[in-house]
Amino acid sequence: MSENKEFVKDITKMDEDFAKWYTDIILKSELVDYAPVKGCMVMRPYGYALWENIQDVLDQKFKETGHKNCYFPLLIPESLLTKEKEHVEGFAPEVAWVTHGGEKELEERVCIRPTSETIICTMYAKWLNSYRDLPFLYNQWANVVRWEKTTRPFLRTSEFLWQEGHTIHETPEEAREETHRMHQIYADFMRDYLALPVIMGQKSEKEKFAGAEETYTVESMMHDGKALQAGTSHYFGNHFAKAFDIKFQNRKGEMEYPYQTSWGVSTRMIGGIIMTHGDDRGLKLPPKIAPIQVVIVPIAQQKAGVLDKVEELKTRLEKSFRVETDIREEVTPGYKFNHWELRGVPVRIEIGPRDIEANQCILFRRDTLEKETVSLDQLEEKLTALLEDIQNNMFKMAEDNTKARTFYAHDWDEYIKLFSEREGFAKIMWCGDMACEDKVKEANATTFRCIPFEQDRFQETCTICGKPAKHMVYAARQY
Amino acid sequence: MSENKEFVKDITKMDEDFAKWYTDIILKSELVDYAPVKGCMVMRPYGYALWENIQDVLDQKFKETGHKNCYFPLLIPESLLTKEKEHVEGFAPEVAWVTHGGEKELEERVCIRPTSETIICTMYAKWLNSYRDLPFLYNQWANVVRWEKTTRPFLRTSEFLWQEGHTIHETPEEAREETHRMHQIYADFMRDYLALPVIMGQKSEKEKFAGAEETYTVESMMHDGKALQAGTSHYFGNHFAKAFDIKFQNRKGEMEYPYQTSWGVSTRMIGGIIMTHGDDRGLKLPPKIAPIQVVIVPIAQQKAGVLDKVEELKTRLEKSFRVETDIREEVTPGYKFNHWELRGVPVRIEIGPRDIEANQCILFRRDTLEKETVSLDQLEEKLTALLEDIQNNMFKMAEDNTKARTFYAHDWDEYIKLFSEREGFAKIMWCGDMACEDKVKEANATTFRCIPFEQDRFQETCTICGKPAKHMVYAARQY
Repeated sequence: MSENKEFVKDITKMDEDFAKWYTDIILKSELVDYAPVKGCMVMRPYGYALWENIQDVLDQKFKETGHKNCYFPLLIPESLLTKEKEHVEGFAPEVAWVTHGGEKELEERVCIRPTSETIICTMYAKWLNSYRDLPFLYNQWANVVRWEKTTRPFLRTSEFLWQEGHTIHETPEEAREETHRMHQIYADFMRDYLALPVIMGQKSEKEKFAGAEETYTVESMMHDGKALQAGTSHYFGNHFAKAFDIKFQNRKGEMEYPYQTSWGVSTRMIGGIIMTHGDDRGLKLPPKIAPIQVVIVPIAQQKAGVLDKVEELKTRLEKSFRVETDIREEVTPGYKFNHWELRGVPVRIEIGPRDIEANQCILFRRDTLEKETVSLDQLEEKLTALLEDIQNNMFKMAEDNTKARTFYAHDWDEYIKLFSEREGFAKIMWCGDMACEDKVKEANATTFRCIPFEQDRFQETCTICGKPAKHMVYAARQY
Repeated sequence: MSENKEFVKDITKMDEDFAKWYTDIILKSELVDYAPVKGCMVMRPYGYALWENIQDVLDQKFKETGHKNCYFPLLIPESLLTKEKEHVEGFAPEVAWVTHGGEKELEERVCIRPTSETIICTMYAKWLNSYRDLPFLYNQWANVVRWEKTTRPFLRTSEFLWQEGHTIHETPEEAREETHRMHQIYADFMRDYLALPVIMGQKSEKEKFAGAEETYTVESMMHDGKALQAGTSHYFGNHFAKAFDIKFQNRKGEMEYPYQTSWGVSTRMIGGIIMTHGDDRGLKLPPKIAPIQVVIVPIAQQKAGVLDKVEELKTRLEKSFRVETDIREEVTPGYKFNHWELRGVPVRIEIGPRDIEANQCILFRRDTLEKETVSLDQLEEKLTALLEDIQNNMFKMAEDNTKARTFYAHDWDEYIKLFSEREGFAKIMWCGDMACEDKVKEANATTFRCIPFEQDRFQETCTICGKPAKHMVYAARQY
C-alpha cells in the first residue's frame, strides 16, 4: 500500500471525537472498508484474519461441548417468518425482501435471514421423533441481513457475520443449563481471548430477544464509557416448538414439545476490541487473537547481513508465533513503526547491524509503548512471557477504565445529572416496573444493560421511582 | 434418529434409477435435506462436516500459496452488476433481486451475489495504487445465489457454498501462472483427497465463464457416465480492470490496467464424491475427508466388559483417527452395520466378548466389503495402512470406470450412435468451429467438456464435420 494512504498523524484524537477516531483507525489499519451498498462493509484481509482467529477458538469450544455445525438456507419464505408472533414483530421492520428470481416475480416473497430460528424450527419439526434423538446441538456460521437505518462498520451493519447456535432439549432444566453454558463460554472467551472485562447478567423483559422467555447477555464497556452488548444466549421454553409444531415421543410414549435455546456472537465483537483497547496511535490487538503477534523491522537493512538475520529470525520464530517481517525499501523504519502500531501488532522486534553484532534485539510492546533489549538466545522465552504480559495488562487497563467509569445512582436527580456529565455504567436499584425503564430511555437515551448475576444491593429503594427495589441493574448508553 | 426413518432396503438400486438412488442416499444418510424455499438445501451436520474437511485442506493450500481470506458483501447494486457486458448477460437471468428493506422500497434494487467479480473489482479500483501493492491474492468463503430452474442438492441449488479467489497482477504472465497454479491445486486436491480421477483442460469459447478470456476446468466422470464440472479457474486479461477502472502506476511511472484471475469450487464437489464412489448400500467416503473414518460397533454389548473395551479403544484411536462408537441399545448390530455403511464410513471395527478374550477385533472395509481379523496390539498400524489402501482403491475403481466409459468417436454417425446407447466421455476431434459444438448440443444434449491438456490426436479430421481437426475434445452429457 503506498504511502499517501496511511499517514498516522491524520488520525483524529480519541478524546476529541471518539466516533471519528473509530472510523479513522478501522479504515487506515485496513481492517475494513465501506462497500457500495449502504450499510454494508468489506472485511479486508487483516480484519478477516481477526475474525478467523475468533472463529477458530469459539468453534473448538462449541465442538468440545458437543455441538455440530450445519448450514441452513439464506432465504426464508414470508409465511415462515410470520409464524411466531413476537418474533416477526421484532424482525419484520428490518428484513430485506427478495421479490424476483431472474426476470420472474416470485409467488411468495422471501426474506434474507435476519436470524434463523424460523427456518431451523421448520427443519427440527421434520427431524425430531423420539426423546432418543435429543438433544439437537447445532450451530451455524453464517451471514445475516438486518436493514439498519444508521450503521457503523462491525458495530451495526446491514449484513454481518455471526454464529448462531440452536438447540432443543427434552426438559426445561437441560435447555436452561445449555443457555447458561453458552453464556459462560462467551464470557470466558471475551475475558480470556479478547481481554474484555464483561458483565454477565439477564436482560429485562423490554430488552430481551423477540420470542425468548429469558435472554442472558455479556455486556462490555468501551473506552468512551458506552456499553456494547457483545453476545447473547436465549432460553425459549417451548414457545417456538408450539408455533412450529416440533414434537417428540417422550419416555412415557406421549407426544411432547421440546425446550429450546439459541445463542450468538458476531463480527460486532471486533468493534468491541477496537473501542476497548485502541489509542491515538491506532489499534491494540490482544496477542491471543492478533493476526500478527510479532513484526520484525530491520534497521539499516541495506547493510550486509541484516536482511539475512531478519529472515533467519522469522523462520525461527514462526514455529511458535504469528510473525511478519517488513523489509520494504521505499519507506523508513520510523514509517514502519507507525504502520504496525496503527495495526495494533502486540510486539515489534527492531534489529540492526549493531544488535546483530551484540547478539541482541529490541522488543517494543504496543500496549505500554516500552522497549527493552534482549539477547537473541532468550528470544522465544522472552516473547512468550511478553505476549502473556501484554494480554493480561490489556485486560487490566480495560478493567481499570470500566471501574473508573462505574457509578452509583441513588435517586432520579443523581441519575440525570450523572449522564448529563459523562458516559459510563450506572448502578441503579430497580423496582421491576417497565415504566421506570421506559422513563430512563426517554429522559436521556440510556437503557438497562442487564440485571447482573453479581448483585450489589446498595439500597432498598428504586433509583427511578423510590418504591421498594427488586434488582440492581446496570444502565448506560449503548452502541 | 429412530428406526422407521432409515430403512436401508428402501434405497433405489443405482442401476435402476440413478437419479432416484442419488436422492435416496443423500437424504437417508442425513447429509442434506430439502428446505422450504424451492431449490435450497439444508446441510445437516454430517454433510457439513464433509464440507468443513474440504475447506480445511483447501484453505491451507490457498494460504500456503500466499492467498488471504476476506469477506465482501452479499448484496450488489444493479448498476455494478451491469458494468461488464458479457458478465451481466451471463448472470442477470438467474439472480435474486432485493427490492425492499423493511417496509421501504429501495431506490436502486440490489441482487444477491451470484459471484463477486463486480463488487470485488469495485474495491480493487479503490485500493490499488502502485505496482508495489501487487499482486492482490484474495479469496473468500461465501454463499452465492443463482435462481436455477431445475435443482438437485449439492449439484445445482439456488443457494450454494463455495470459495471464490480473485487476484490481480502486474503482468499477463503472472496472472496466467496464477490461473494455472490454482487449476493444478484443484486437480491435485480432487485426485489426492476426494479420490476423483479428473481431466484437466480448457473450456471452449462457448463454455467459458461469462467475461473470461480463458477458462480452465477440472472435469470428472460420475458412476453413470455423465460429466461433472468440479472446479474452474479463469484468466480475465484486463477485461474487468477496464470495465471497473482498476489502474496502477507501473515501474515506469505510467498508469496501467492490471491482469486478473478468478477461481472457485463449491459444495458441488460433494455431489461428485457421492456419484463417483457410492453404491447400492449408500455412500462411500474417501478416508482423507470422511467426517468419521472409523466406527466401532460392539457385539453383545450387554456382556460384561464390552462397552468398557469400546470406550477404551475409542480413547486410544481418537489420538490418530476420527472415530465414533455406536452403543445404542435399541437397535441390533446388523442394523448399525447398515446405518454406517449407508453413511459411507470407510472402516468399521466389530468387537465382542470372544474378540476381547482373544485380544483381537474385526475390521470391515466399506469399499470392498471385506473383513479381516487383527490383533489389538497392531490396530493403529493396520488402520493407517487400511485407510490408505481404501483411499487408493477408491481412486482406482473410479479410474477404471472412467476408462471403461471413454470412447472414440470418429465421425458423426458413430457419435450419435454412441450417445444413443450409453453415457460416457467421447473423445472427438474438432475443427474449432462453434457450429460443430452447437450441432452436438442440439443433436443429443452433449456438450464439450474441455480441450484436455493431454491431447490424444487420434485422427486428422473433425468428428462432426470432417474438416481438418485442431483439437481433441471430450464431449459428454453433464450434471
